[in-house]
Amino acid sequence: MTRSALIVGTGLIGTSIGLALTQAGWTVWLKDTDERALGLAASLGAGERAHPTRDPDVIVVATPPLTVGLVSNEVSRLFLDSIVIDISSTKSYVQQEIERFGLSGRFLGTHPMSGRERSGPDAARADLFDGRSWVLCPTSATPLAVVDLVTELVVGCGGRPLTLSPEDHDNAVGRVSHIPQVVASALAAGLVNASQTELDLAGQGLRDTTRIAGSDPALWLDILKTNPEPVADGLEQVINDLASLQSTLRTLAESTQVDKSINRQSDEASRVDAALLDLLARGRSGYSRIPGKHGARAVEYAAVPVVIPDEPGALADLLAAAGKAGINVEDLAIEHSPGHPVGLVELMIEPRQVPALTQALSAMGWSVH
Amino acid sequence: MTRSALIVGTGLIGTSIGLALTQAGWTVWLKDTDERALGLAASLGAGERAHPTRDPDVIVVATPPLTVGLVSNEVSRLFLDSIVIDISSTKSYVQQEIERFGLSGRFLGTHPMSGRERSGPDAARADLFDGRSWVLCPTSATPLAVVDLVTELVVGCGGRPLTLSPEDHDNAVGRVSHIPQVVASALAAGLVNASQTELDLAGQGLRDTTRIAGSDPALWLDILKTNPEPVADGLEQVINDLASLQSTLRTLAESTQVDKSINRQSDEASRVDAALLDLLARGRSGYSRIPGKHGARAVEYAAVPVVIPDEPGALADLLAAAGKAGINVEDLAIEHSPGHPVGLVELMIEPRQVPALTQALSAMGWSVH
Repeated sequence: MTRSALIVGTGLIGTSIGLALTQAGWTVWLKDTDERALGLAASLGAGERAHPTRDPDVIVVATPPLTVGLVSNEVSRLFLDSIVIDISSTKSYVQQEIERFGLSGRFLGTHPMSGRERSGPDAARADLFDGRSWVLCPTSATPLAVVDLVTELVVGCGGRPLTLSPEDHDNAVGRVSHIPQVVASALAAGLVNASQTELDLAGQGLRDTTRIAGSDPALWLDILKTNPEPVADGLEQVINDLASLQSTLRTLAESTQVDKSINRQSDEASRVDAALLDLLARGRSGYSRIPGKHGARAVEYAAVPVVIPDEPGALADLLAAAGKAGINVEDLAIEHSPGHPVGLVELMIEPRQVPALTQALSAMGWSVH
Repeated sequence: MTRSALIVGTGLIGTSIGLALTQAGWTVWLKDTDERALGLAASLGAGERAHPTRDPDVIVVATPPLTVGLVSNEVSRLFLDSIVIDISSTKSYVQQEIERFGLSGRFLGTHPMSGRERSGPDAARADLFDGRSWVLCPTSATPLAVVDLVTELVVGCGGRPLTLSPEDHDNAVGRVSHIPQVVASALAAGLVNASQTELDLAGQGLRDTTRIAGSDPALWLDILKTNPEPVADGLEQVINDLASLQSTLRTLAESTQVDKSINRQSDEASRVDAALLDLLARGRSGYSRIPGKHGARAVEYAAVPVVIPDEPGALADLLAAAGKAGINVEDLAIEHSPGHPVGLVELMIEPRQVPALTQALSAMGWSVH
């Protein structure tokens, strides 16, 4: 008998799980109150839009976090031999709901780390989970057989199971995802009243620091509502650091011009320097801890800047040239010069390969810098 | 007689100006107390490492902001017929120094908007200013002839002159550059004590929001010290928004589980929703105001996701295919799947071209999603 799953909620994650499990040979049934989403998911090949013909091995509740408890309760009564998982972004809240409904012995909270900025079945992909961490949050009440079956599902989708307690999970995503989100929102909110001249001076730094502020507010409302404490706790340090910096800057603004330029070695000036440098240095140190690609430790790639015409095919030709030189381009950044038909491309490669790439590209006539 | 310039300080900007002016036919002399930097700049072709044989038309003081006053005073006494400009990132502080030394009639503060994350003559490029804004900050004491000559220099370097008062300039860069920098530093500082498990869950959002926290603390120390008031003022809104969010989240954390899940329509719950949504919505709105490439208004590019093998040449082949289809890829993002030898590339193109590109790539066998 093949494994089987019922997916309740055919959004981005639900549909992607359906696509992945179908590819892995599972029998998949789909449910959604939204007829359009359900129809699209089914026609994409994520599963059958039909009532299960037997109790599914696993029911995947892929609905918004605030509804997971109620939906899990409902489906667990319809299919008494199925286990139930959810895939929402916060886990303690969901676990409490599950306990309130007395479902702990049949439930496992999970969170695939595979979000996208877009949502809906339109954005679904069978490979969404390939090689990505997929957090499982068992409690002392979770039977081992449930963990084993869910592990099979996760591996079937291409994911890498990672076990954390609901609390540790929520603290972790609070720190690496939810706090960055609200800080980006607060930073971008400062642009609402910016003048056009100010905005015209914006560079890549502003774009990068605020990009995630463009995400869907409704989705983030639910995430913040179900993870309030870790986010509030983590904001303490950010707010304190910014308030302390602000106070240092106010002191500086009140000192005279002569103080600043001539009398730099005073105790007061040293204290100001130390306070400002402390924040900048801690920030640099924290940034350096973020892992690079393939889950590896952070790698310092070297950037090789090349100027190319801003026209179809130019970037392809450049990368073909790099490939011909046997260099794997790990990442790249494109910077367009406003009002000018050239672009600057920075090819990120392993530092030891810089001389080889620079020489090869120059020899082929590229404007390497 | 060709135009001539003396460049004092052969770092990234000074050397790049030397390269650009030399290409534009100017006679350029170089000075730096750092022999290595001076030698490198000269050998790159940025100018001659010799004492000027006549008073240069323009002296470019390309030294750190805190030293601009003293250096300008010194060089203006050596070359009585030269005008003097600086290129540092803050302008009010420098202008006050210039007035203190009585140099207002011969000086113009400028700021090319062409920074890079790397510094030094090694990173210099003749095209660094191509099509970029270059702010000029004349005061009522600046002779028109000085503005005209500096405009000639800026245009000669490929830059686009933009006139602002020193105060307006400092407010603008405070908002679009200095505040994002310190907020990124405060956010990244929160990672100093993060556990390895937490860091392993990090995604692209965290990388983007903190990337500029990796910048050189010494450079930013000087920038913050010479622009304290606009940064302190602008931080007020960020701190207030985060503190207010934190307080809302604390209220929510103290409400009971049942309150949250069932009693969602209470007045208190509505107030919480409204407060959270307000910040998220203002952030999204502020983000949407940032101009896109070529100084144009923000454009919403459409993303076409393609899965490619993570090996030399794959990206080049993909872009060649896009070029063959006649599509100009405006930008792209590469996301590597940790532990798996495939990468997801998102090609950013004009929305109306999505069907054509998707069809063309699919027909050529690409894994388009």
